Amino acid sequence: MLKSDSQFSGTQMSPSTKSAILVIGGGEDKVDRRNILHEFFHRAGASDASIAIIPSASREPTVVGDRYRGIFEDMGAKQVKVLDIRERSEEPQFTEYIGECSGVFLTGGDQVRLGELLADTPLIERVRRRVQLGEMTLAGTSAGAAVMGHHMIAGGSSGEFPNRSLVEMAMGLSMIPEVIVDQHFHNRNRLARLISAIAMHPDRLGVGIDEDTCAIFERNGLLRVMGQGTVTIIDPQKISSNNHSRVDGSAPLSLHNLGLEVLCHGDCYHLLEGRAISPEYVQESTVSGKRVEG
Amino acid sequence: MLKSDSQFSGTQMSPSTKSAILVIGGGEDKVDRRNILHEFFHRAGASDASIAIIPSASREPTVVGDRYRGIFEDMGAKQVKVLDIRERSEEPQFTEYIGECSGVFLTGGDQVRLGELLADTPLIERVRRRVQLGEMTLAGTSAGAAVMGHHMIAGGSSGEFPNRSLVEMAMGLSMIPEVIVDQHFHNRNRLARLISAIAMHPDRLGVGIDEDTCAIFERNGLLRVMGQGTVTIIDPQKISSNNHSRVDGSAPLSLHNLGLEVLCHGDCYHLLEGRAISPEYVQESTVSGKRVEG
Repeated sequence: MLKSDSQFSGTQMSPSTKSAILVIGGGEDKVDRRNILHEFFHRAGASDASIAIIPSASREPTVVGDRYRGIFEDMGAKQVKVLDIRERSEEPQFTEYIGECSGVFLTGGDQVRLGELLADTPLIERVRRRVQLGEMTLAGTSAGAAVMGHHMIAGGSSGEFPNRSLVEMAMGLSMIPEVIVDQHFHNRNRLARLISAIAMHPDRLGVGIDEDTCAIFERNGLLRVMGQGTVTIIDPQKISSNNHSRVDGSAPLSLHNLGLEVLCHGDCYHLLEGRAISPEYVQESTVSGKRVEG
Repeated sequence: MLKSDSQFSGTQMSPSTKSAILVIGGGEDKVDRRNILHEFFHRAGASDASIAIIPSASREPTVVGDRYRGIFEDMGAKQVKVLDIRERSEEPQFTEYIGECSGVFLTGGDQVRLGELLADTPLIERVRRRVQLGEMTLAGTSAGAAVMGHHMIAGGSSGEFPNRSLVEMAMGLSMIPEVIVDQHFHNRNRLARLISAIAMHPDRLGVGIDEDTCAIFERNGLLRVMGQGTVTIIDPQKISSNNHSRVDGSAPLSLHNLGLEVLCHGDCYHLLEGRAISPEYVQESTVSGKRVEG
């Protein structure tokens, strides 16, 4: 189902590339084992890492930026800078560092603010290009995760059935255009709003990510799960009925024949083939060469 | 996927039988249009209806029983009795009325209490038999809905990923043995616990019902949706991986290749074929004769 202009489909890649996009469901462990943050640190180059933290989604960018800087410095990164972008006009001064660094981390906060600040800027275009080329690892947590798709869940509510007015959509940063991400997924009862988003955009894949859980989008076309919770895939590839265009805002939606995957640590999902793979079958050879081409 | 000992599979039925099992997600409208309660009243015989209300799940059986009695009397039922069963030893006195009435309504409350009071009693065996024969309509709301399956969700929590300790199971009344029901579904964030229940019993169909919404199990093998919200079907028929037997209590579950249906008012689900049907395709002929045999 994924579009051929994806960064996954046409790219020639080695089976075990390190650079990736880490989409974190919020609430990642920042104190104890810090597994997900360590994965980002490692993929950004570990002790050779030059990391850019973009805290612009947050209302307290200084506090939040400093916190992540402390964490990655503590892990031993070579260089960590907080790019405290507060206006679109400010961003050119940071673009140079983005051209040099090996990892970019988008913090939580308000995804609408983050999208408005960064969408279609030279800075984010440079991030996209360098991620596509495998030159850098990108991570985003919570709001920083929400912006990853072409379509973004800007807001919404919970506690009721799927309906059009349950979710507000906006344009994301299109780092992984094929997906619509929802974060804090089981934690905040977000099945209905993710379904509502998919009803509106049934050519996308719904990816609901729990707290302290990460969907790692590898460059070889695999989504790999790590962390404490689950990643839920809502797959409309074979949808047979969708009443979205025929009902009013608050009427219940109806979607037939969706696919549902519940993935935990070690599981993978093959984005091009649209199927889950258990850890015991995840061998790098599975996704290299023949299956990923095409 | 449904077992052949189902009351749906072997029964010779007309395509438009009136008697059915109404499984209500709780919070049904009792004041205004009362559509779902009116549907029960109608299917129980309308002005010819003799209705038994079993309020035994509730901590306030007198209050709850009287409320429903008032509603069905107000609608014009011929006879309404509240069977205030409080001990298993008490129930024989009510069995005679159960043999005569045309509708039984199980109220909300605690499904464990309801199951313990009624399971394997002559009274509930008589209800089952008369429902199978099409002689009576059965309805249950909230706790009264939970007890419908062979396996019942006795309790659990929400706000986290699917895991074994998220849900407690018990034996239900087995009125619709093939399903595991969860009620107040989107309202109370119950996807994770229904998935956890299905991981334990992947030979059953998960049915999550929203408030003021009803899954009507027709005798011809159709589940028909009515009401304000949605009915969510979690279908493990084609499950390709399930780690339930291999993980500890609080570890995240992993289930691959589930089916997901989001059904709204008018939609049907064909229980034997395992597929959803839109209202425009729901013709009684669809489910009579050739497709339902087998």
